[in-house]
Amino acid sequence: MNRIKPRTLSGFMELLPPSQVCFDIMVRKLRETFSLYGFASLDTPLMEATEILLAKGGGETEKQVYTLRKGDTDLAIRYELTASLAKYVALHYNDLTFPFRRFEIGKVYRGERAQRGRFREFYQADIDIIGDGALDIMNEAELPSVIYRCLMSMGLERFYIRINNRKILSGFFEILGIKSGEDSTNVMRLVDKLDKIGADKLIKSLTEDLRLSQVQADEIIFFITSTEDPFITLEKYKGKSETLDMGFAELSALQKHLAGFGVPDTHYKIDISLARGLDYYTGTVYETYLSDYPEVGSVCGGGRYDNLAEYYTDRKMPGVGISLGLTRLFSILLEQGLLNKEVLSAPADVLIIPMTDDLSHAVRLATSMRELGLRVQIYSENKKFKVKVSYADKLGIPFVVFLGGDEIEKGLITVKDMSSGEQTTASSGMLTTGICEKIKVLKKGKPIEEKI
Amino acid sequence: MNRIKPRTLSGFMELLPPSQVCFDIMVRKLRETFSLYGFASLDTPLMEATEILLAKGGGETEKQVYTLRKGDTDLAIRYELTASLAKYVALHYNDLTFPFRRFEIGKVYRGERAQRGRFREFYQADIDIIGDGALDIMNEAELPSVIYRCLMSMGLERFYIRINNRKILSGFFEILGIKSGEDSTNVMRLVDKLDKIGADKLIKSLTEDLRLSQVQADEIIFFITSTEDPFITLEKYKGKSETLDMGFAELSALQKHLAGFGVPDTHYKIDISLARGLDYYTGTVYETYLSDYPEVGSVCGGGRYDNLAEYYTDRKMPGVGISLGLTRLFSILLEQGLLNKEVLSAPADVLIIPMTDDLSHAVRLATSMRELGLRVQIYSENKKFKVKVSYADKLGIPFVVFLGGDEIEKGLITVKDMSSGEQTTASSGMLTTGICEKIKVLKKGKPIEEKI
Repeated sequence: MNRIKPRTLSGFMELLPPSQVCFDIMVRKLRETFSLYGFASLDTPLMEATEILLAKGGGETEKQVYTLRKGDTDLAIRYELTASLAKYVALHYNDLTFPFRRFEIGKVYRGERAQRGRFREFYQADIDIIGDGALDIMNEAELPSVIYRCLMSMGLERFYIRINNRKILSGFFEILGIKSGEDSTNVMRLVDKLDKIGADKLIKSLTEDLRLSQVQADEIIFFITSTEDPFITLEKYKGKSETLDMGFAELSALQKHLAGFGVPDTHYKIDISLARGLDYYTGTVYETYLSDYPEVGSVCGGGRYDNLAEYYTDRKMPGVGISLGLTRLFSILLEQGLLNKEVLSAPADVLIIPMTDDLSHAVRLATSMRELGLRVQIYSENKKFKVKVSYADKLGIPFVVFLGGDEIEKGLITVKDMSSGEQTTASSGMLTTGICEKIKVLKKGKPIEEKI
Repeated sequence: MNRIKPRTLSGFMELLPPSQVCFDIMVRKLRETFSLYGFASLDTPLMEATEILLAKGGGETEKQVYTLRKGDTDLAIRYELTASLAKYVALHYNDLTFPFRRFEIGKVYRGERAQRGRFREFYQADIDIIGDGALDIMNEAELPSVIYRCLMSMGLERFYIRINNRKILSGFFEILGIKSGEDSTNVMRLVDKLDKIGADKLIKSLTEDLRLSQVQADEIIFFITSTEDPFITLEKYKGKSETLDMGFAELSALQKHLAGFGVPDTHYKIDISLARGLDYYTGTVYETYLSDYPEVGSVCGGGRYDNLAEYYTDRKMPGVGISLGLTRLFSILLEQGLLNKEVLSAPADVLIIPMTDDLSHAVRLATSMRELGLRVQIYSENKKFKVKVSYADKLGIPFVVFLGGDEIEKGLITVKDMSSGEQTTASSGMLTTGICEKIKVLKKGKPIEEKI
C-alpha cells in the first residue's frame, strides 16, 4: 500500500496531550469567569450563508474568508465571532432578554499566508453585552474586571489594561478643527500607530499625508504623549467640545468603579492616546498587554460600539465587548516557556497494575475509585513489569497500584507514590482516601507560571 | 440601508441560551466521565489536507465532504474524527505512550441534503484506545461501562447497549461454507438489516441476491433470531471454526467483567445478530438504543478495529472506540421534551438592582459575591422598577438583591427569592451564605429527565 506522509497544515495548532491539558484549563477558567459576570454561553455555527457573514464587509479580512459551494448553497466559514452574534441577536430578538450578555469561545478561520504566530485556525473568546436601544456606561466599567479576573485565574499576573474613550480623541480633533468623519478617522488611525512608528514619523505623516498644519500636529503629539495625569490634561480642554466632554465624563465614571470591580490600579492605565484600529468603536476602548512581552502587542481588546445588527434590523443595538485571542496567547506562553510544569498533565491519577491473571479485583477496584472521582486506568497489556511501570512514569501518572495475589487474599492494595517512590500496603479504603487528598492538591496548580 | 434577512443555515443547530445550558452540561459530563477512564483530551484541527482526510476513502460519505481551495492548498473539512486521530497517532507516534487513550468532542461536517434529524454540522464525542502492535480484550470490556456512566450522568437511564463480536458472525458464516472476504461481508451487511427489513425479506435477499441456499439462509435466520441465551447457542457451534471460537472467548471474557465495571445486566444485551455496518470493525461491536425510542436507532456505537493508521505507517495499531452523536441525541431529547426543566438555565444566580444613583455599593457587593463563586449581574439600565424585576423573571434568575439608601446606611441588603416570592432584609454576609447554599442545590439537576 502507498503510504501518505502524515502532516498537519501550517497555521493550525495541534497540541500534544500535556499541553492540551493546560489549554483546556485555560478554556475552563475563561468559561467560569465569564459565568461569574452573568454571561450566557453560546455556540453558533462555524458556517453561515456568505451574504450573512460578509454583510458588514470585512475589508482586508474579507479576502481571507474561506468560502465554499455545496449544491446550491454559498457557505462561508466565520473569520470572527461578531458577525454570528449580530445575526443571532437579530434572528432571535423575540426570544432574548436585553441587555443580552453572551460569551462564545470558538474557532474562527482566516486563509492567511502562514507566518510565525499567525494562525489559520484559532480560538477567540468573546464576551459582549448588547442593549436594546440603549446601554449604560456601567457595562463598560465592568469589562476590565472580566479581563483582569480571567488572566489572574490562569496564573497570568504581569499585564495591564489600557483604557480610553474614543469620544475624547474625536472631540479633541474637533477642537483642532479636523472634520469629523473620514478626516478624523484617518488621523485616529495614524495616532494609533504612535507606539510603532514614533513621534517624528507620526508628525511627518500627519502633515504630509493628511495635510494637517504643523500646529495641529504638534498639539496632537503634545496631547497623546503627555505624561501628566490624563484627567488633568482633559480638564484643560473641558467645555470646548461636547464630544470630548462626554468622553471625559464616561471615562471618569468608568475609572471610578474599577477598584470596586476588583481591578487594582497596578493593572490598568487610562491612556488618552489609545485609539484602537477598528472603525466601529464609538466609546470606551480596551487593549491588554503582557508587561514582560510588549512586542507581542495586545492579547485582549475591545470596546463600545453603537449598532451591532444594523445590517439585519432597524433596531438600534449598542453593545460593548472584548475578544481574547486564545490560540495566539497560548502559543506565546508555550514559546516563552510560561506553562506551569507542575500542572497535573497526566491523563489519569492512578494506574492499576494487576499482578494476577484474573483481573476481576482490578476491575472492581477501578470502578470503586472512579466512583470517588479518581481518574483510573488499568494496565492490561501483556508486557514486562518494567514496561508497565514505565508507562505510568512516561505519562506522569502520580500513583500506581499493584494488585497481587497476596494483596487480594488479605484485602489490601499496594500504592506507589511515583514522585517520592514511597510504597505503602494497606486497605484500599484508607489508601484511596489518601490518594484523593493528594490529587486535590496536585490539581490546584494554575496553567501559567510566570518567571519574574 | 438594505437589510439582509437574518437566518441560520438548515442542518445547523443553533440553540437559545436555556437549551445551550443543558447542552453544555452534557458536554461537561462527557468530558468528566471520559476523564475518569483515563482518556486524554485532544482538539485536532477541523481542516486537514484533502489527501489526509480522504486517505481511507469515505465511500458514500466522501461525496458529502466539504472541500475548499485557498491559494495552493487543497483543504477538506473533517466529516468524522477518526481520520484526524489516525493522522495524529501516526504523526506524533514518538511523543505518545501506548496504549494511547484519547477523547475528542468536536464538530464535524457533512454536506448532506438537510432532512429532519440530519445535520450538516454536528458534534461527535469519540473515545478510542490505540495499541502499538497489540491491544488486550480488557479494553473492549471497559467501553460499555464508559457509555453506561456517560448516559447515566446526564440523567438518561432508559437505554441498553447491544454487544457482539464480529468474529462470531464471521466464524458462523465460515461454518456455513460462505467464503470469507467479500461474500462474508455482503452477508454481514444484509444480516445487519434484520431489524429494518424483517426475516422474510432477509431470506429472500440472502437466497436471491447473494445466491445462498435455502438451508444456509434458514440456518442464518435461526442463528440470529434465536431467543435462547446466546452463550448456549454458541456452545453448539464450538470447535467448528477457529474464528467463531475466538469471538466466543472474547465475548465471554468481556461479559465476565461488565458487572465489575459497573454495568448492570438491565443495561446491556449480548446479541449475536449484531453486525454493525462499518466494514472496518473486526472484533467487539457496540450499539446503544433508547428503550422508549427504538425508532431513532443507535445513539452511540463503535467497536474493535485492527489497523487504525495503515494509510500512514507500517506499524500495526489496533484499537477500540466508540462515538456518540451528541447533536443528534440532543435534538431527539429536545424534540421529545426530555430536557430537565428544573435545570438552572439562567445566566446568573443573582441580579443586583441598585436603588440609588451611586452604584459603588452595588459594584462592591457584586465583586464580593463573585469572589464566593456566585454568578452576578448588576442591572444598571435606566428603566422602570417593574422592568428591572421582570428582567430577572424572564431569565429565571433565582435571586434579586435590592440595594436602597436605607439598606446601604444600615449595612444591610434585601434579597427576594424569585421562586417563593419571599423577601428578606439582613446583613449581606448572612444572606449571601444562604444564597450560595440554595444555588448549590439548584445546580444539582441533571440535564435529562425521562418521563416514565
